[in-house]
Amino acid sequence: MSKLRVCVWHEFVHEKKNQTVKELYPDGMHTVIAEGLREYDADAFEVSTATLQEPEHGLTEERLAEIDVLLWWGHCAHGDVSDEVVDRVQRRVLQGMGLIVLHSGHFAKIFKRLLGTSCALKWREAGERERLWVCNPGHPIVEGIGECIELEQTEMYGEPFGIPSPDEQIFISWFEGGEVFRSGCTWFRGNGRIFYFRPGHETYPIYYNEDVRKVLGNAVKWAAPQGNWAGAMDAPNVPVEKAPEPITAKGGSLHEAGQAGFR
Amino acid sequence: MSKLRVCVWHEFVHEKKNQTVKELYPDGMHTVIAEGLREYDADAFEVSTATLQEPEHGLTEERLAEIDVLLWWGHCAHGDVSDEVVDRVQRRVLQGMGLIVLHSGHFAKIFKRLLGTSCALKWREAGERERLWVCNPGHPIVEGIGECIELEQTEMYGEPFGIPSPDEQIFISWFEGGEVFRSGCTWFRGNGRIFYFRPGHETYPIYYNEDVRKVLGNAVKWAAPQGNWAGAMDAPNVPVEKAPEPITAKGGSLHEAGQAGFR
Amino acid sequence: MSKLRVCVWHEFVHEKKNQTVKELYPDGMHTVIAEGLREYDADAFEVSTATLQEPEHGLTEERLAEIDVLLWWGHCAHGDVSDEVVDRVQRRVLQGMGLIVLHSGHFAKIFKRLLGTSCALKWREAGERERLWVCNPGHPIVEGIGECIELEQTEMYGEPFGIPSPDEQIFISWFEGGEVFRSGCTWFRGNGRIFYFRPGHETYPIYYNEDVRKVLGNAVKWAAPQGNWAGAMDAPNVPVEKAPEPITAKGGSLHEAGQAGFR
Amino acid sequence: MSKLRVCVWHEFVHEKKNQTVKELYPDGMHTVIAEGLREYDADAFEVSTATLQEPEHGLTEERLAEIDVLLWWGHCAHGDVSDEVVDRVQRRVLQGMGLIVLHSGHFAKIFKRLLGTSCALKWREAGERERLWVCNPGHPIVEGIGECIELEQTEMYGEPFGIPSPDEQIFISWFEGGEVFRSGCTWFRGNGRIFYFRPGHETYPIYYNEDVRKVLGNAVKWAAPQGNWAGAMDAPNVPVEKAPEPITAKGGSLHEAGQAGFR
Repeated sequence: MSKLRVCVWHEFVHEKKNQTVKELYPDGMHTVIAEGLREYDADAFEVSTATLQEPEHGLTEERLAEIDVLLWWGHCAHGDVSDEVVDRVQRRVLQGMGLIVLHSGHFAKIFKRLLGTSCALKWREAGERERLWVCNPGHPIVEGIGECIELEQTEMYGEPFGIPSPDEQIFISWFEGGEVFRSGCTWFRGNGRIFYFRPGHETYPIYYNEDVRKVLGNAVKWAAPQGNWAGAMDAPNVPVEKAPEPITAKGGSLHEAGQAGFR
Repeated sequence: MSKLRVCVWHEFVHEKKNQTVKELYPDGMHTVIAEGLREYDADAFEVSTATLQEPEHGLTEERLAEIDVLLWWGHCAHGDVSDEVVDRVQRRVLQGMGLIVLHSGHFAKIFKRLLGTSCALKWREAGERERLWVCNPGHPIVEGIGECIELEQTEMYGEPFGIPSPDEQIFISWFEGGEVFRSGCTWFRGNGRIFYFRPGHETYPIYYNEDVRKVLGNAVKWAAPQGNWAGAMDAPNVPVEKAPEPITAKGGSLHEAGQAGFR
Repeated sequence: MSKLRVCVWHEFVHEKKNQTVKELYPDGMHTVIAEGLREYDADAFEVSTATLQEPEHGLTEERLAEIDVLLWWGHCAHGDVSDEVVDRVQRRVLQGMGLIVLHSGHFAKIFKRLLGTSCALKWREAGERERLWVCNPGHPIVEGIGECIELEQTEMYGEPFGIPSPDEQIFISWFEGGEVFRSGCTWFRGNGRIFYFRPGHETYPIYYNEDVRKVLGNAVKWAAPQGNWAGAMDAPNVPVEKAPEPITAKGGSLHEAGQAGFR
Repeated sequence: MSKLRVCVWHEFVHEKKNQTVKELYPDGMHTVIAEGLREYDADAFEVSTATLQEPEHGLTEERLAEIDVLLWWGHCAHGDVSDEVVDRVQRRVLQGMGLIVLHSGHFAKIFKRLLGTSCALKWREAGERERLWVCNPGHPIVEGIGECIELEQTEMYGEPFGIPSPDEQIFISWFEGGEVFRSGCTWFRGNGRIFYFRPGHETYPIYYNEDVRKVLGNAVKWAAPQGNWAGAMDAPNVPVEKAPEPITAKGGSLHEAGQAGFR
């Protein structure tokens, strides 16, 4: 069986500006996340990274065509991601590529694009305790995880979270300061699987945590393409003479034979 | 009880270019749709129209604030709708405004924006027979409709339809030429209700059909705002001292006190 | 407009056995819940009660036919509810009657019947603080409620909650002891609307709380029948000669003409 | 990798009573379905059968514990399946066993139990043409299937189909006589995956059809357990002293320490 091709995308900005982040992730969060995935299963995953600063953010057509599961981290530079790349990633997800969106990626263009809602939430940066409760034990994403994951210091995200009803609720978070949040959600869109996973924040060592790494590895396996719907964006005309049942055209017409539909 | 403020939006292009459409809808499809809604319940609905050609497409902030349910017809000019107006309509839907998308509006920017998927489909313009079967008798949208609606001449739309799983399946269509289509679907997004209704095509007298008019009137009532979520797009910070449970800030920080979050 | 006919069903057992419950609810929880609904809107609601001890649990065919929204409280006597009455209530919900299930009703036969899953959960009786966070401000069920409802003493219910993904997530609870729970959920089944609302427990004065009463009143309005699907349980045969398109019967057959299908 | 343990369950009644069925399926439909699955992938599947007539319908606790995916065919003998066996199968599905329900199994006790709705539909036995359209190309269940499956002679099933909104819509059927039906649907319940596949009827050679066999093989792979939630039916008490956050019990109490909850 060939390896699953996983790419960790990162805007890679805060590590260069904020001393705390720099110390925690000297080579960028993407390298630590990638390292965690290799550690999870080096035989099954072939892990690469891409960043905002690369040409086309490192996500050219050719590159994307060879990615099975994409992880996305962004925070302060969402607006710098080009709409063309967002179009491209969206198409690949609808065709079948898995997408895992991390923490502040809730406001990433690609996440808002695929969900269609505000993706807004409440937040507080106080290094408080978070407990992520498992809503569906036995789901592949929580394999090897107990009843909950406890993180000593995290940023708080609180409801209301502006999302469409998740297809599956995997985690819900409890926060020391009194709030709750749907912190692990899946959606099926087109032929692709999407997983949002809340923990993060770049000033805490979240991506060194063993349980977090386990969830990310599990999620990559879960989000692996289940097939390929190459024509996911196509809107083909079916000529009258190719109708499954024989029919004769009647009435007025807007299009000439063979003309493409309007978009 | 005050009237429900309904607005029929139309790109209003084909009536000026295509002779068949012009004859069927000399004053534009929007006026016929609006007329049908007034006929449905003149006491309950206050119906207006807006078109692409008006300043800001007739959908200024002020105007939108006074619309309860918006119907959307577009076909050949989807690309001419400004992104700013799409942003605005999306926000209003998430706050609670109802949205009814008609026929070729499946490729309207606002529909793709709210659903996040391709919204693509197969199509054939042959004036064939369509039968829309009711999947949930008793649903308010099909009040007064029998087992199915039969239309003698329609454009065919066929599966696969690139949408997220509908929250409710209201109609599924059978076509003479052999295809099927999910032709009446609802989605809940934010605090707004969305209904997609397939029949249409401007070369057939669809919007003069009594059953079609009944469905549109029912759908307007169903899509009426259930409340208002003014802050649907907000992502408020909760200061440490306002946490519901008393906590003390720990760990590193990215934001200064009172700073807005990144978008 | 005629009044909405609301019935509060209660097993009415603990008030007779437990001194704490007896003191809090001397005439039974159903009377206090009913009183709260009358207080909410005496003009709109016509409120009655029914209990396990009445013949057919107070839910005869005739009685049920005149109920628009049914509230259900049960705890220690779930097993004493007859399957025949459960069949009857299920049919009415699928036809369009609203159903609001309260607290320990998560294990009621009718709730498990309509959802099909375990409906299991974790629990702890420690009189701890609960905060129910609103996930969809502007939803009619939370009209007049702020960001959250705070209850000083409640029983804890914790995830995993064995339910199908809710159609709408209305509340999620935070507990002092560290757990979370999906404490306000809606599902659409057939033509009926179902709302589960967690707070309760008979040893605390939950149903005297103003916010809880407001939610119940809102929920009753929300769950009001949207139409009636009288034949929700029917599986009619369509005779060959009544097919919408003319067809001729071919191949072998199992049924004789006019025979009912197997169940 | 060990083989997937698949069991085809069949009521096995019509083959003994109806001459047409007997000729088509002399050893029972289950043997033909099982043969198709072995043909699909003998290396991956270990296929067995069970029938109504065996002790405990061939589905003892021990047997069920060793089944990964169960296929279910029933028609005229739904009522003869014991509730105890239904309880057992339900529990296994919620724990993670896959379930594939075939054709007239829409009225099987286990299907109605897991979905909670009427599962009713319209029907006609006329040997008419059916075309099952793929709604999600690239979904693993339709691997190797084209745009649609065409069956020359089938029984018609028509909407409304009394089901909860499917989690994924895989197929929708077109019928020669003019109806439509949601003929391939998935639901996630607990930790199990459920697939309903409409084609069937025992008087036509449906289970010899290559496309039908391919779908069944694909569906078995798709429904394979993704994990095991052994305690899916449990409702554990969390003692006060084991609360994740330290708390002190307050208020009145119904249960004594260590007592199990009510069911």
